[in-house]
Amino acid sequence: MFSKNKIKFINSLKKTKYREIHKLFFAEGEKLADELLNSGIKITNILATKDWIKTNSLKLNGCKAEIDEIAEVELAKISSLSTPNQVLIIAEQPQYTYHLEEISTKLSLLLDDINDPGNLGTIIRIADWFGIQNIFCSESSVNLFNPKVVQSTMGAICRVKVHYVDIPTLINSVKRYPDFNIYGTFLEGSTIYNEPLDEKGFIIMGSESHGISEKIKPLINKKLFIPNFPIGEKSSESLNISVATAIVCSEFRRRSFSTQNGMKP
Amino acid sequence: MFSKNKIKFINSLKKTKYREIHKLFFAEGEKLADELLNSGIKITNILATKDWIKTNSLKLNGCKAEIDEIAEVELAKISSLSTPNQVLIIAEQPQYTYHLEEISTKLSLLLDDINDPGNLGTIIRIADWFGIQNIFCSESSVNLFNPKVVQSTMGAICRVKVHYVDIPTLINSVKRYPDFNIYGTFLEGSTIYNEPLDEKGFIIMGSESHGISEKIKPLINKKLFIPNFPIGEKSSESLNISVATAIVCSEFRRRSFSTQNGMKP
Repeated sequence: MFSKNKIKFINSLKKTKYREIHKLFFAEGEKLADELLNSGIKITNILATKDWIKTNSLKLNGCKAEIDEIAEVELAKISSLSTPNQVLIIAEQPQYTYHLEEISTKLSLLLDDINDPGNLGTIIRIADWFGIQNIFCSESSVNLFNPKVVQSTMGAICRVKVHYVDIPTLINSVKRYPDFNIYGTFLEGSTIYNEPLDEKGFIIMGSESHGISEKIKPLINKKLFIPNFPIGEKSSESLNISVATAIVCSEFRRRSFSTQNGMKP
Repeated sequence: MFSKNKIKFINSLKKTKYREIHKLFFAEGEKLADELLNSGIKITNILATKDWIKTNSLKLNGCKAEIDEIAEVELAKISSLSTPNQVLIIAEQPQYTYHLEEISTKLSLLLDDINDPGNLGTIIRIADWFGIQNIFCSESSVNLFNPKVVQSTMGAICRVKVHYVDIPTLINSVKRYPDFNIYGTFLEGSTIYNEPLDEKGFIIMGSESHGISEKIKPLINKKLFIPNFPIGEKSSESLNISVATAIVCSEFRRRSFSTQNGMKP
C-alpha cells in the first residue's frame, strides 16, 4: 500500500523546483501510461487501480517500477484530472542531447518564450504528427514536465525531444550550414502558400503575447505569413500560437508530400 | 457604485441555466471589451476601473449600458481570469438566423458534439481568421456563452455566427443544392493535400473523444485525411480537434488563394 508520504511526494512534483531536485515527473491516465510503458523512459513508480494492474499485467512484466494498488477514490484525490482515472506514473525526466550535424538536415521547431502549458503540450503533439523530432525552447519557456504540459502532449512527450537552449546562440551555430533557413511568421511576411519551403530548417514561433522577440527577429531570413480570408481584407485578429504552428507545419509537410508524389509543390 | 446583488448576478451568469433565463453573457478584459463595443451586440452593463473608463471615454459616448466604476481588487474577486483585469462587460446574447440559400454558396463548419470550451473558442477564432461566417454546433455541444468559450474566442465571437442545430436535419436540407459537398476528416480518408476542395460546403469536425458520430458518418460524401509524417508511416497519434480544424480550413483557403493568383491549386 502507498503511504501518506508518497502522496506528499507526488504533490511536491507539481512544482518545478521539486521536479528539478528529483529529476522526476508524473503522468496520469491510461493513454499516457501506455505510451510511457512502450517508451524508453524509466518509470520509477506506478499507482494504479486493481483493475488497471490486472488488465496490464503482461505489459508490467519486466517493468522494474514500484507498483502500488490504489482505490480510484484515493487516486482522484491526488489527481489533477477532472475525469475518472486509473493510473498515475512517476518517471525519470529523459535527458536529450542533439548534434548540430544531424539537426542541420532536419526540420525543427524553435519556441521563443511559450508560457502556456496547454500550448506547449499541443505543439509537441503537432510536432509528433508531422515527424518533427526536435523542439528547442528558450530557457524562460514553460517547463516541459509541468503536469499540464505532460497531459496535453497525449503521449507525444515520449517521442519528441524537447531541449532548452539560448535561441540566438543556437541559430548562430547553424550559420555554417549552407541553405539552412530560419523561418518565422510575421504579419508582414510572404504568403506561406507560395513561398519555397525546405525539408530542413528552423521554424521559429513567438510567444503568445509578444510574438517573436526583438533579439531573434534579425536572425530570421525567411519571413512567412498565414493569410487571412477573404484575401487582402485586413483582419485585426491573430491566430492562437499552437494553431499557427499546426498550419505552418502542415504546409511544410504538404510540400514534401507533393514532391514525393511527383506533383507540383 | 455596484452592489453585492450585482456581483451575485454576474456570478450566476457563469451557469448556463441563468444565462438562458436572462439571455445575457459576460466577457472580460480590454481586448474583448473593445471588440464588443465595436460590434452590434447590445451591452447592458460595464464594470470597469477608473482608468479604463477614462481611457475609453470616447468609445463610451452613446453607449447606453449602465457603467459602474470598480476597484481592480474588487474586479479580481469576480473575475475568472488569472491576469489583472480592467473591465467586465455584460451583454445580450446575439440571436442569429441563417438562410439555406446563402449557406449553400459558402463554406461553413459543423461541430459534432464539441465539449471543451477552449476548443470551441479556438475554433471560432480560426473560423474568423479564415472568413468562415457560420458555425453549426450539435445541440449537445458546449454552450457558446460559457465564459471560457467567450474568452478564448479573443473577440471572434462578435463576428462569427454560431448556431445550435440538429446536424443530420441540416445536412439533409442542403441536399437540394447541386455540387454542395459534405466534408469530414477520417483516418481512412483521402489525403487532403491532393483532393479537390470547393469554396463552398460543410466541413464536419467530430468530438474530442469520439470523432464524428455514427449517425453523421453516412451523410459525408468527401472523406479527407491529414497525413502524418514521415509519409506512409503509421502513427498511433491523433491531432487535437482545434488543430485539425485549423489545418483543414487553411488547406481549403489555400486553394482559393492559388486560384485567385492563377496558380495550380
